Amino acid sequence: MGGIAATRFEMVKQRHFQLWEKAKSEAKADARIIPTVDFIFSKKEFFTTSSCSGRILLIQLDSKETKKPKAFFAKYHSIPKFSEVWKKLHEKSQNNLWFKQESFVIVLGANTLENAKKIMSVCRNNGVKKVGIMSAEEGKFLVEAFGSNYMSFLIKEKNKILGSEEFVEKQFKTACKKLHANWKMLEKLEKALRKELESD
Amino acid sequence: MGGIAATRFEMVKQRHFQLWEKAKSEAKADARIIPTVDFIFSKKEFFTTSSCSGRILLIQLDSKETKKPKAFFAKYHSIPKFSEVWKKLHEKSQNNLWFKQESFVIVLGANTLENAKKIMSVCRNNGVKKVGIMSAEEGKFLVEAFGSNYMSFLIKEKNKILGSEEFVEKQFKTACKKLHANWKMLEKLEKALRKELESD
Repeated sequence: MGGIAATRFEMVKQRHFQLWEKAKSEAKADARIIPTVDFIFSKKEFFTTSSCSGRILLIQLDSKETKKPKAFFAKYHSIPKFSEVWKKLHEKSQNNLWFKQESFVIVLGANTLENAKKIMSVCRNNGVKKVGIMSAEEGKFLVEAFGSNYMSFLIKEKNKILGSEEFVEKQFKTACKKLHANWKMLEKLEKALRKELESD
Repeated sequence: MGGIAATRFEMVKQRHFQLWEKAKSEAKADARIIPTVDFIFSKKEFFTTSSCSGRILLIQLDSKETKKPKAFFAKYHSIPKFSEVWKKLHEKSQNNLWFKQESFVIVLGANTLENAKKIMSVCRNNGVKKVGIMSAEEGKFLVEAFGSNYMSFLIKEKNKILGSEEFVEKQFKTACKKLHANWKMLEKLEKALRKELESD
């Protein structure tokens, strides 16, 4: 890696490290992913720009289903009680509401294409098939990796809840199961990254 | 691009071109995406390995929600009548059924990293934000681009349909709207690719 690329890498890593430390100090970091992100920052060839361990969402989308500011109606990074979600659903919303379960996502920065490819291999060899290089500049290769389970359906239209309580609870419980499987996958990936990158 | 990389590119492109021509001749190609794929193959720096214009699915998944052979219960690449979907739902399935709406996906092969990045720029500049390099080998750079709208929920468990006919029809109609938006996005991308790559 040449001088300019090395300098770019250090600058970008430093900037994201400060943002990460700030997020942690303000308790805005996703607790479940802190060990993974801290480990990645500790390796001199890598950093992360953003990450989420997976979540259940109630999200407000307009008729074009574009996400606007204040779109999040409820965000759960750990499993809530169903009664809490059901109660929240009864609150008035501005737009239609969608129920979503999202998987983890990590954006990893690497200093070289070879190191970006190494991350991709570790992901794929550990069952994380959704991984790709989003940005490829000398000194700044960004790899996005995410889990492959998700749910999404329209749950409230014009402030009318669609589906019975029994139906919504069934989908909620299914989402919880998927979230647990997602967290297992994330743990497996963290262990594999530690094993593969620790030896460097 | 060096000799070995050039040879690899030609070999891989040729192989995928034959597979594509075979799929077309057997009417197994997704009709809506044929013009885009034909255009991409006509450009000497590019090819595609797989593509789908988007669809509505009823898919059988086991308790771990892994896809097994014969998982597809129904696949709709164009909009079916709701009565057809509702009738299909009443047929006996082996495993739980999921209702899914998936967006388009295209995997483009490029001969160089620069050309792979060019494809990514065209995608992003035209609203296709989900795009990344899945494979980076000299002479074989694979870029995956896909639309960002999708739906997924559990629709049948132990051969019992979850949700009323009214509920399922509402989700189906929502999926159809999303599929139309997805096709518009694909058309826009095709036009942009023609414009940006035609000049080469």
